[in-house]
Amino acid sequence: MFETAELGHTVSKEDYEREVPGLRGELLDLQYTLLESKGFSVLILLNGLDGAGKGETVNLLHEWLDPRHLLARGFDYDRIDPAEAERPWLWRYWQCLPQKGKTGILVGSWYGELLQGAFTRTLKRSAIEHRLEQIKNFERLLEADGVLLIKLFFHLSLEQQKARLKALRKDPDTRWRVTDADLTRLRHYAEYRRGVEKVLRETSTGPAPWTLVEGFDERYRALTVGTLLRDRLKERLEGAAPPQPPKPPPVSPGVATVNILDRVDLTKVVPKKRYEQELEHLQGRLNELSRHKRFQKRSALCVFEGWDAAGKGSTIRRLTQALDARRYEVVPIAAPSEEERGYPYLWRFWRRLPRHGRFTFYDRSWYGRVLVERVEGFADEITWQRAYAEINDFEEQLVERGVILCKFWLHIDEAEQERRFRAREETGYKRFKITEEDWRNREKAPAYREAVADMVERTSTDLSPWTLVEANDKRHARLKVLRTLVDAVEAAL
Amino acid sequence: MFETAELGHTVSKEDYEREVPGLRGELLDLQYTLLESKGFSVLILLNGLDGAGKGETVNLLHEWLDPRHLLARGFDYDRIDPAEAERPWLWRYWQCLPQKGKTGILVGSWYGELLQGAFTRTLKRSAIEHRLEQIKNFERLLEADGVLLIKLFFHLSLEQQKARLKALRKDPDTRWRVTDADLTRLRHYAEYRRGVEKVLRETSTGPAPWTLVEGFDERYRALTVGTLLRDRLKERLEGAAPPQPPKPPPVSPGVATVNILDRVDLTKVVPKKRYEQELEHLQGRLNELSRHKRFQKRSALCVFEGWDAAGKGSTIRRLTQALDARRYEVVPIAAPSEEERGYPYLWRFWRRLPRHGRFTFYDRSWYGRVLVERVEGFADEITWQRAYAEINDFEEQLVERGVILCKFWLHIDEAEQERRFRAREETGYKRFKITEEDWRNREKAPAYREAVADMVERTSTDLSPWTLVEANDKRHARLKVLRTLVDAVEAAL
Repeated sequence: MFETAELGHTVSKEDYEREVPGLRGELLDLQYTLLESKGFSVLILLNGLDGAGKGETVNLLHEWLDPRHLLARGFDYDRIDPAEAERPWLWRYWQCLPQKGKTGILVGSWYGELLQGAFTRTLKRSAIEHRLEQIKNFERLLEADGVLLIKLFFHLSLEQQKARLKALRKDPDTRWRVTDADLTRLRHYAEYRRGVEKVLRETSTGPAPWTLVEGFDERYRALTVGTLLRDRLKERLEGAAPPQPPKPPPVSPGVATVNILDRVDLTKVVPKKRYEQELEHLQGRLNELSRHKRFQKRSALCVFEGWDAAGKGSTIRRLTQALDARRYEVVPIAAPSEEERGYPYLWRFWRRLPRHGRFTFYDRSWYGRVLVERVEGFADEITWQRAYAEINDFEEQLVERGVILCKFWLHIDEAEQERRFRAREETGYKRFKITEEDWRNREKAPAYREAVADMVERTSTDLSPWTLVEANDKRHARLKVLRTLVDAVEAAL
Repeated sequence: MFETAELGHTVSKEDYEREVPGLRGELLDLQYTLLESKGFSVLILLNGLDGAGKGETVNLLHEWLDPRHLLARGFDYDRIDPAEAERPWLWRYWQCLPQKGKTGILVGSWYGELLQGAFTRTLKRSAIEHRLEQIKNFERLLEADGVLLIKLFFHLSLEQQKARLKALRKDPDTRWRVTDADLTRLRHYAEYRRGVEKVLRETSTGPAPWTLVEGFDERYRALTVGTLLRDRLKERLEGAAPPQPPKPPPVSPGVATVNILDRVDLTKVVPKKRYEQELEHLQGRLNELSRHKRFQKRSALCVFEGWDAAGKGSTIRRLTQALDARRYEVVPIAAPSEEERGYPYLWRFWRRLPRHGRFTFYDRSWYGRVLVERVEGFADEITWQRAYAEINDFEEQLVERGVILCKFWLHIDEAEQERRFRAREETGYKRFKITEEDWRNREKAPAYREAVADMVERTSTDLSPWTLVEANDKRHARLKVLRTLVDAVEAAL
């Protein structure tokens, strides 16, 4: 695999100086076209041995492109912040994705963390396999959301690396460029090379292949990176649509079946007296759990979905009543803002994940993609179909990191909904909660019912099951939600 | 001071039910008007004893207002994250300000941290005085940037607090609502009350006074908060302009004086040979310092300002060449985005402050307000005049927290600038760096010179001096910047 990057490529000074001005001009034009179109973002991953050209390439790109639209980040794998340690391992990378129109450069990227873990044996074999899988899923998501992913691996042969380090160490003024890690890696070069090869092979997928760049000759390296970037940008800007997976078959089979929502027993009611006692009792337990020693190493996230007027907001308030304001956050989800549309779909949820010892309550959530966006046609079928897998991956990562995840669908029937709509219209200060659109949406109930059934089928997993809540009786619904959450937290601690 | 909040106010159920529907309707209307106007943001600080109604008020506001446009945050003063500890103490609050049109609720807020520090004696008297000063400056900044600040302090008299805790502890289901901190505070009530009184008195400024809310009666409390919010919102929405400080006198006296830029000796040059040796040497020192053990508890921030084509970008690249990509970030500053304009002016800089062990290089900076915004008239005189003090406060807070701060003005004369502009026009791939506007800006050189002189006079402090860099000779400029930074870091470690 590395052979082509060990041929001792060089570019003469004359050739370099002849090529560069034209190349820089083209790159700048492309960068501006991208910026104006805002059609996609570019993410460049720079990996490889220290001294093979990662840092120099960051500088080069800052010189050749308009640096105001570049965003470069390097990662320190020896220092993981609590904010990072309490979130999925990819979270730190989710935080530095470029917006559409812009170019991000990740020095080291998620591969650096993986390779370092493999090389220092802080990650077990099975953990590496698992993370490789997660990387592949994540890159598939990025590609599908339109990110142009360019993965560069800078390579030096053993001889080149030896020669380079020797030259640097000779001069007192350049000795600092040789680190202890360089020397260790040199001693274990063969092992390092094998490990890298496996990772590159496994993650060189169709849309996002690795490009090996021979790092020894500075001019060769610069021209290679510049040309590659130009060609990939050009190709995408000239209309090559981002690769899309083939259109999947419909989720629900066409034959008439019983919808899972028909099985929800809406006759359950709780009398007021019992409600008040049990509410106080459950709130007490929830509060105690929130202050439990072991919960300070865990966190909880609740997703609330349900029909309009099913009582999501008022149910959430019964939870927050029990909690100290320091210990929770309520995240209401509406249509994405202009800024949020500039990022992959899940980006805005990635930003609001609970810290240890805290609860996050999502009033509507990432499931919007397979509910409202599907039914209203805001997302095309390929897009909402792939969302099931993306969501499952995302939730798996949350649960792996110790997040206690509860998902509630608050269910009411159409008669009850109509009753509540009318009551809202009659109460002045509740009128904002009811619009013409809410009434219109009722006509789409069958489509929503199908979407809900598909959603439950596809995303109710062992790791993160859905709880269907009978919500015609608000008291019953609130107690069931509280009880489910309390039980889940208790079971986890 | 607390007398009016110890009168035992109550509101009968009938009165409450008569008042509330109208009040809720008005509040919602006002919220939507605010949202559409996007004229300002609202920030509600909730402080006071536990159990006096902070948490309940968060719930109330979520019920009464449209919760999709609310943003509530509570703060844990016992847990300061590294990300927070490495930044100014107000940084954690800077991160959760609401955007224009929205309403933020900070439970505890910066006052909670201060009061807790005072009560537990983890903050010395002088530190408290100093922080009070910083709070006043910060609130003045918020007000001037149009934030409607509403400060509520929920109060219980000693008897009320005793009665409340006693009732709660009697019932096993509500006992959890009584914390150890509650009991400690009860024992030291008099002391606590004195401390609070001092803080409230000192920070009840004209535009942002405190409102004491008697917390014992739930209905009284709810009506008080709702009415106050309605009145403040109404007043501001009906056109009461945010209070502005009186127009200050001009910075430069009207009499002809020598401009500080005339004193910069632009004849300094460095020969190529010496440049290359010294560059390598200084880069080596910078790299060593970046890996110095003590630097892992510090950070550095460099601001680059200067004439167009003075060489800011290429100078920054001479610094980044010496550093591992993990250890620096380059932040290019252009006109603020739509999103950024929704926040106080300094917000976008507050978001990009270095972590320990890292360098941040600002290619243009917060000084834009007193340079381009002043000269081009994007900011009115009152606004850019107050920026000097705001910037000085901001930088003081950085330096206090151990940030090594260097500010460079890269100076070239008009002839040299013209030469560089022409060279850019002749080089295809540099043409993007030169526009009609750049040429036009040259006509405004006298205004810029005045602005630069004022800026240096007002913001070159002992804590964070400006370095004027003679930049007609690029080699001299780069070495001087490198040397200044290296010396500053060395002196700090």
